[in-house]
Amino acid sequence: MAPMADLIKRNKKLDIDPNPKKVEGTTSSTEPPSPAKDIAAERANTKWGLKEMHEFLEGGEAKSTEILRLYQSIERDPTLQTRPEHFDLTQKEERQLVAERINQMTKYIEIESYAKFRRRLQLMTVIDPSMGIRILVNLGLFVNCIKGNGTQKQYDFWAKKKEAGHLKQLYGCFGMTELGHGSNVAGCETTAIFDEATDEFIIDTPHIGATKWWIGGAAHSATHTVCYARLIVKDIDYGVKTFVVPLRDSQHNLLPGIAVGDIGAKMGRQGVDNGWIQFTEVRIPRFFMLQRWCKVSRQGNVTLPPLEQLSYISLLEGRVGMAADSYRIGARYTTIALRYAVGRRQFNRDGGEEETQLVNYPLHQRRLFPYLALTYAAAVGTDRLEVEHNQLLANLDKGLATNDKLLLKNTINATKSMFVDSGSLKSTLTWDASDLIAECRQACGGHGYSSYNSFGKTWSDWSVQTTWEGDNNVLAMSAGKTIIKTVQQVLNGRKLKDSSLEFLNDAPTLAKAKKAVIRIREHVDDPDRVLKAVSALIAKFAVDLIPVSHTSMDSIGPQRVILSKLRCHHYLLETFIQRLNDQVKAKSPIREPLEKLLRLYYVSNILSPFIGEFLRFGVVSPKTAIYINATYPQQLCTEVRPFVIGLTDSFEQPDNFIHSLIGKYNGDIYNNYLSAVKTINNPLKTKAPYSETFEAMLNRPSLEERQRFERSKEVEEILSK
Amino acid sequence: MAPMADLIKRNKKLDIDPNPKKVEGTTSSTEPPSPAKDIAAERANTKWGLKEMHEFLEGGEAKSTEILRLYQSIERDPTLQTRPEHFDLTQKEERQLVAERINQMTKYIEIESYAKFRRRLQLMTVIDPSMGIRILVNLGLFVNCIKGNGTQKQYDFWAKKKEAGHLKQLYGCFGMTELGHGSNVAGCETTAIFDEATDEFIIDTPHIGATKWWIGGAAHSATHTVCYARLIVKDIDYGVKTFVVPLRDSQHNLLPGIAVGDIGAKMGRQGVDNGWIQFTEVRIPRFFMLQRWCKVSRQGNVTLPPLEQLSYISLLEGRVGMAADSYRIGARYTTIALRYAVGRRQFNRDGGEEETQLVNYPLHQRRLFPYLALTYAAAVGTDRLEVEHNQLLANLDKGLATNDKLLLKNTINATKSMFVDSGSLKSTLTWDASDLIAECRQACGGHGYSSYNSFGKTWSDWSVQTTWEGDNNVLAMSAGKTIIKTVQQVLNGRKLKDSSLEFLNDAPTLAKAKKAVIRIREHVDDPDRVLKAVSALIAKFAVDLIPVSHTSMDSIGPQRVILSKLRCHHYLLETFIQRLNDQVKAKSPIREPLEKLLRLYYVSNILSPFIGEFLRFGVVSPKTAIYINATYPQQLCTEVRPFVIGLTDSFEQPDNFIHSLIGKYNGDIYNNYLSAVKTINNPLKTKAPYSETFEAMLNRPSLEERQRFERSKEVEEILSK
Repeated sequence: MAPMADLIKRNKKLDIDPNPKKVEGTTSSTEPPSPAKDIAAERANTKWGLKEMHEFLEGGEAKSTEILRLYQSIERDPTLQTRPEHFDLTQKEERQLVAERINQMTKYIEIESYAKFRRRLQLMTVIDPSMGIRILVNLGLFVNCIKGNGTQKQYDFWAKKKEAGHLKQLYGCFGMTELGHGSNVAGCETTAIFDEATDEFIIDTPHIGATKWWIGGAAHSATHTVCYARLIVKDIDYGVKTFVVPLRDSQHNLLPGIAVGDIGAKMGRQGVDNGWIQFTEVRIPRFFMLQRWCKVSRQGNVTLPPLEQLSYISLLEGRVGMAADSYRIGARYTTIALRYAVGRRQFNRDGGEEETQLVNYPLHQRRLFPYLALTYAAAVGTDRLEVEHNQLLANLDKGLATNDKLLLKNTINATKSMFVDSGSLKSTLTWDASDLIAECRQACGGHGYSSYNSFGKTWSDWSVQTTWEGDNNVLAMSAGKTIIKTVQQVLNGRKLKDSSLEFLNDAPTLAKAKKAVIRIREHVDDPDRVLKAVSALIAKFAVDLIPVSHTSMDSIGPQRVILSKLRCHHYLLETFIQRLNDQVKAKSPIREPLEKLLRLYYVSNILSPFIGEFLRFGVVSPKTAIYINATYPQQLCTEVRPFVIGLTDSFEQPDNFIHSLIGKYNGDIYNNYLSAVKTINNPLKTKAPYSETFEAMLNRPSLEERQRFERSKEVEEILSK
Repeated sequence: MAPMADLIKRNKKLDIDPNPKKVEGTTSSTEPPSPAKDIAAERANTKWGLKEMHEFLEGGEAKSTEILRLYQSIERDPTLQTRPEHFDLTQKEERQLVAERINQMTKYIEIESYAKFRRRLQLMTVIDPSMGIRILVNLGLFVNCIKGNGTQKQYDFWAKKKEAGHLKQLYGCFGMTELGHGSNVAGCETTAIFDEATDEFIIDTPHIGATKWWIGGAAHSATHTVCYARLIVKDIDYGVKTFVVPLRDSQHNLLPGIAVGDIGAKMGRQGVDNGWIQFTEVRIPRFFMLQRWCKVSRQGNVTLPPLEQLSYISLLEGRVGMAADSYRIGARYTTIALRYAVGRRQFNRDGGEEETQLVNYPLHQRRLFPYLALTYAAAVGTDRLEVEHNQLLANLDKGLATNDKLLLKNTINATKSMFVDSGSLKSTLTWDASDLIAECRQACGGHGYSSYNSFGKTWSDWSVQTTWEGDNNVLAMSAGKTIIKTVQQVLNGRKLKDSSLEFLNDAPTLAKAKKAVIRIREHVDDPDRVLKAVSALIAKFAVDLIPVSHTSMDSIGPQRVILSKLRCHHYLLETFIQRLNDQVKAKSPIREPLEKLLRLYYVSNILSPFIGEFLRFGVVSPKTAIYINATYPQQLCTEVRPFVIGLTDSFEQPDNFIHSLIGKYNGDIYNNYLSAVKTINNPLKTKAPYSETFEAMLNRPSLEERQRFERSKEVEEILSK
């Protein structure tokens, strides 16, 4: 639509144009649009090597190279590669494709390192989230749950001897959530009652609310589930424990006592066979209970060793992964939207011959560039999270293997901060990614609405990331709560050690400071000062909440969510600054664009959106706040503008991974788009299957005829007599 | 997920619970959840008649009654009614259903008043947006375009004689958007060249960028299109005009020179056969040009009368409709999410027997109640917009029929403010509705992700509302621009008349005022004062932007969007206050809840989100700002809490319209949900169609065997020699 007020005005002036445009020939003399040329021209100006930037993004040379090789491997594999026609698949067809891809993936798991396979899986998850989650349910949830909750022998049996770790023989699902219990796992109502007479547990679903629900893989694939159920021994309820329960026999037929169904159509991830399960007096041998932490003896004696809390560590992996997914999704969609913004022209701004590139409109910059900057921050931040998580798991394994009590104690400290960090990064970044996809979609206008440009499917597939494996609000409230409690501990004199939250050791000083951390414009340009401002805000905010937190944690739920978001950004900002200092040489050509992105990141993603809080707690002075909100973000956008093609190219995501007709590298937007649309939807089919209905409607007889003319004047005369 | 930090801590304390919970019998003694009881209990406390509130929402008794009857008519009609299994339809099946529904709708258009039919169509559009838009493309765009741009005779011929107005004989589509031209209609490149020799226009698509794109109905349904094309006569380009161009003959076969294709899969509205069209030297008689405003004579003389701007009025109808749609969508999704929030329990807050209802968590209230309040404001605001739009059209028809120059002049004034109002309401409210659906989805957790609860399909279908018939950002910038220009005119001494923007006549005074409008807490409780504060902010903001606007309107794009949002809220707030004063008696039982909602609306949707601007321009004092942001919204939520079931019941949307298993009136969430899931997805089908692939994978031979054992030690010995 044109701005109508403009048109009205313009036409009014014109009436008959005194200088009409002369055109020649029998058709218009206009030139076709040439988006590829525009993109190529900007690409030619990129002043850095993409590989150097990619290594910065991925955290190092080795990881960067592995990822580039994996992109290539996936692009070449005829089963794993993407095709535009995949956007037309029905649920049935998508599930068929996903099954074939899982099958193909098992070929790799047998021949490459587990670390490399996990990386392959992580990348595949971005382009086929249904396939990703179906494998992750088995490897990340079923097998990891056994690893976290079972003994070494139990793990060796199920994962290795029975080959569940290779998606062979067994395929496990994760029976945690119930129809009436999502976030509150401790409230699960499925029961596992010990029958001393037969040395068995009886797994049972007492009522509809305890029906296992949303269980990925349960409907058609899983042979086994880990079942979260209340351990009941001699009428005593020991709370929720985990049990391996077979669902299907070796012929893949359901076992008696197991009722299973497909939960049917979903908003996204249609390729996953999520199911519901009801157990009716299903008996499993005692040794199917996972008993690394909790043991039930033959006589029904229950032991709960002190380290059971470590069993929850297995839940971290999913969150760490989802934070990293957010970076890759951000990279994919900012690439599409910014290539389109450079290639697409709309309205004539300066009265010149050509229309203006979308990317040159300040509003368009303000919509997209902050997300680009956020994606860079998320790249380095989530890489650090992954590294710290791996370190934690290694320490835990080492501590348990050597029974090193000190190491275990330190690991528990690190685990606590990892719960905060993974929780706040997972929730903040999956929310942001969801908004990012939607905004990028809108920034591509109508073409963003075509399935072949991939926004719709990704948004719908993505959306569940804000809900599962820790509902974002619940996770964020939990992270916020820990921050408040931690600040209180520090105020009470207990300093933090072995924790990523050690910056909170300064909370007493920061909270007391009267002077604003950011008082003049120049302060906004100093990343270290901004980081300090975020620390100060977290400290002051937490201190302010301590009194209420004693009486009602629930009443400050909204504030705890804000704290969690601030914690996420502190983590990203700290990492961005540090890596820029440590890894990028002073004269490197990637330094300038990164410094500009860093500023744009914290101004548009931290200072500006949380300005109300920064002002309320006096961390930013009111005058600087106006600068931050009104003029500075646009100035930073203008500075970033020349680099956008280079910055998105640096993500190095190939066309197969971008999987969007208007987002392809060559930038030939319109030809790529129309030719694929024609290939997929054969224009020879000019009539739809429903055409008969439709044509009959258009050519229907008159209302009078269909009424058998029985309301006519003639009939009136007859029937009125 | 449970908040893990909590679990860790709790378990640490417990080790073995000193007071374990005793359970009896062989299965758990827990009771099934009973959401229906909770909802019924709150419903019993509703202290007002739903009809009275519904009349307030819909603007009066007659409209309310008509809507309730139409709900009933739709629910009873076997073709129009909704069913849960509709969420499983493939694109093909959805198009079939939509075709049948269109056919059924044509039966009503023949026998009921056009106003009633339009209301029926409006309601159907909420539950079947694909069907809605397919009819609207013909009636709202094709026929309206002929009405707006054609002569009375032309309209009579196409709409009446040829029965396009009854979806009979003809079915028109709207050939405006091109592959390379969306928002900039004036930049369209399709040409209509006058051939004086044959008295015809030659319609032509010069290159790929001018391909008509996204044309709803073009792929398989439309017999004709109105084509936006550049009028070229004797080598002079007169700009974009409109032409009726036949696409298919009476046998529904494509005409020569017309290339058409299906644009294929889309994010939503899969039931619409959007297509692309390329014209190659398609000849139409001169009299197929719509010539109410612009005429081409037999000799090729072109006349452009002064009132051509009125031709754009036909575009307003869609915007007015989409603003109203936003209200109904808001009503539908807040109803679902709040019923679920009352019925669903999660975590035990107070140590009692039962878990806490979601709706009692302050965070949950803060997430949903502001949207409920916004929906109420949108109801009254969009009803007013509809009334004013109808008035405008009536005046225009009257003015043209009687050639009343004064009336036409006044109508043009009103048209200008209607462009601002419809543009700012359409953009603001369709954005808000999009966020509302997504937030309500998340507030229903995993169950929000099931298709049968309707969030996913609606969000995807809805999403295009932010893009089409005026991209939201373009519309909002246009509205913002008019506001700035209008304020400038007023400053120059030209007062507004016959305009809904007359409040801007106070701009000079408001902009000069030094004292904040809202200075103390009590001021926040005064709706009239808050309305004045919004006026003051708009005035000050606009005055501040005037200098830059002279040099570069584009550079203030982001600020113009904010102005447009403020204009929308001014409109809604003004209407809400006025109708509450005029239509609700002092002692009416609906007054108390409405007064509370009104406050919650403006605090959480205006004062709080725009607090940065209110502070920057000194309209709200900093101390009051803290109150507005920190404590007051929660207090208002607590006040609204007891009314939420009554307030959502008052929307009076029946189950058929709500179309969501967890949102049904009876509140029996879990039984409604499971029983439908079982009916739609037969649990007897325990194996998927792809099961063979999957079972073969699980039971595959070992890697060594598949490698023909050719990498064994034995082979090594052989091949190493």
